[in-house]
Amino acid sequence: MVESVERDVYSAALLIIGNEILAGRTQDTNTPWIAERLTEHGIILGEVRVIPDVEQEIMSTVNDLRTKFDYVFSTGGIGPTHDDITADSIAKAFELELVRDEKAFKMLEEHYGLEELTPPRAKMSMIPEGATLIPNPVSAAPGFIIENVHVMAGVPRIMQAMLDHVLREIKAGKPILSNTVACTLPESTLAPDLTDLQEKYPDVQLGSYPHYRGGVSGLSLVLRGIHRGSLEAATEELIEIIKGHGDEPRALSIRSTG
Amino acid sequence: MVESVERDVYSAALLIIGNEILAGRTQDTNTPWIAERLTEHGIILGEVRVIPDVEQEIMSTVNDLRTKFDYVFSTGGIGPTHDDITADSIAKAFELELVRDEKAFKMLEEHYGLEELTPPRAKMSMIPEGATLIPNPVSAAPGFIIENVHVMAGVPRIMQAMLDHVLREIKAGKPILSNTVACTLPESTLAPDLTDLQEKYPDVQLGSYPHYRGGVSGLSLVLRGIHRGSLEAATEELIEIIKGHGDEPRALSIRSTG
Repeated sequence: MVESVERDVYSAALLIIGNEILAGRTQDTNTPWIAERLTEHGIILGEVRVIPDVEQEIMSTVNDLRTKFDYVFSTGGIGPTHDDITADSIAKAFELELVRDEKAFKMLEEHYGLEELTPPRAKMSMIPEGATLIPNPVSAAPGFIIENVHVMAGVPRIMQAMLDHVLREIKAGKPILSNTVACTLPESTLAPDLTDLQEKYPDVQLGSYPHYRGGVSGLSLVLRGIHRGSLEAATEELIEIIKGHGDEPRALSIRSTG
Repeated sequence: MVESVERDVYSAALLIIGNEILAGRTQDTNTPWIAERLTEHGIILGEVRVIPDVEQEIMSTVNDLRTKFDYVFSTGGIGPTHDDITADSIAKAFELELVRDEKAFKMLEEHYGLEELTPPRAKMSMIPEGATLIPNPVSAAPGFIIENVHVMAGVPRIMQAMLDHVLREIKAGKPILSNTVACTLPESTLAPDLTDLQEKYPDVQLGSYPHYRGGVSGLSLVLRGIHRGSLEAATEELIEIIKGHGDEPRALSIRSTG
């Protein structure tokens, strides 16, 4: 990758580290938030993995994802307790030492005061050697970056602040624009037209999502792409197709504002 | 694996196939629902992967997960439109032909009537050769099972009916019991005690989850395991630990009813 060449889009994977999601007790709300923010920055989220707090799993998954995607973002497991093993596991994945980062220690000291900086809290200054810190404006304990891997907290408020910081720093692509057209036609009625439309506009990703809400079935058609011209042309054709089947597109949310 | 040997727990992976989750426009609500149902059946959800509607991704991910886990459950991509490529991709992963399943065709014919059974709808009777069908009581188009891979719809209401059907048929383990103890102590205060408690009860999985709700920070401690005795002993010790730090466990949800 030649750093000076600007690219239209970058790819990313999200790694969610946490038994609580796998146990079903916590609903992951970070994924849609992260996906939206990446989209605005021209970064396509290509895969999400949720794995348990198990060293070997974290190591092998990070090493797999960081070679496949431009960016990896992880959430979870950087707190003070016994089940917070992300920093240690990622250090091992990169074959780096886990060392006390003096800048991180200072952040924690300023937040808690030296007397309240207990050993479990001080543990949160242990960072893989050479990593860059991601500030945590909420509770001080920082995340960190090694190469293309961005290690963030799992608590949504902290993660969001960390991601905002990261997105100001990293290379962005062109915003991914999207239009959504809703109708009440059955998916199968539109299927042949959608196939043709997708073929006609290969640079627009066209998705068809049926849903049932309050006993009423509906269909959302989502068009995504980085080229405003083809996105809008495809959207207009789709609206005409729906009208041609005797339905009126009932909601039309356009997010192509990037 | 000797089929006649009963096991305490089985492992599973969930594969979510769908651009709409990766685009951030749809919140995945299937994961917590599936995780909870599996837990009741002694099946531990060990990994979740969200991947796009891309043939090569589906093939390689299915082939990876089906060798690592006792069961694989997939959701999404079995509808009538151009972006529904799950059945075809999974057939290729198993090196099987995609064929018209007469039983599936009959289900669709009964649901729609022969006149309304358009080619896109009939496409939903194309199933990998030799697969077992999973009935769909909502909209007829069935899921299917090949070896340990269970292919289900993504629409929650349909997925839930399909999973209920599957869970009546497959080998189950012992229900995984869990207790949750909530308190207002900082995580770091409890960290050394939690480390000791985890060491004392290796068959209980002990997780510590801080949260911020309405500006108030709190801590949920979750204990999970299949042995009621050690789970309850660990829970009682944890309650005493919290009291020893001058806090009162303020909510105590016990789900060890399996």
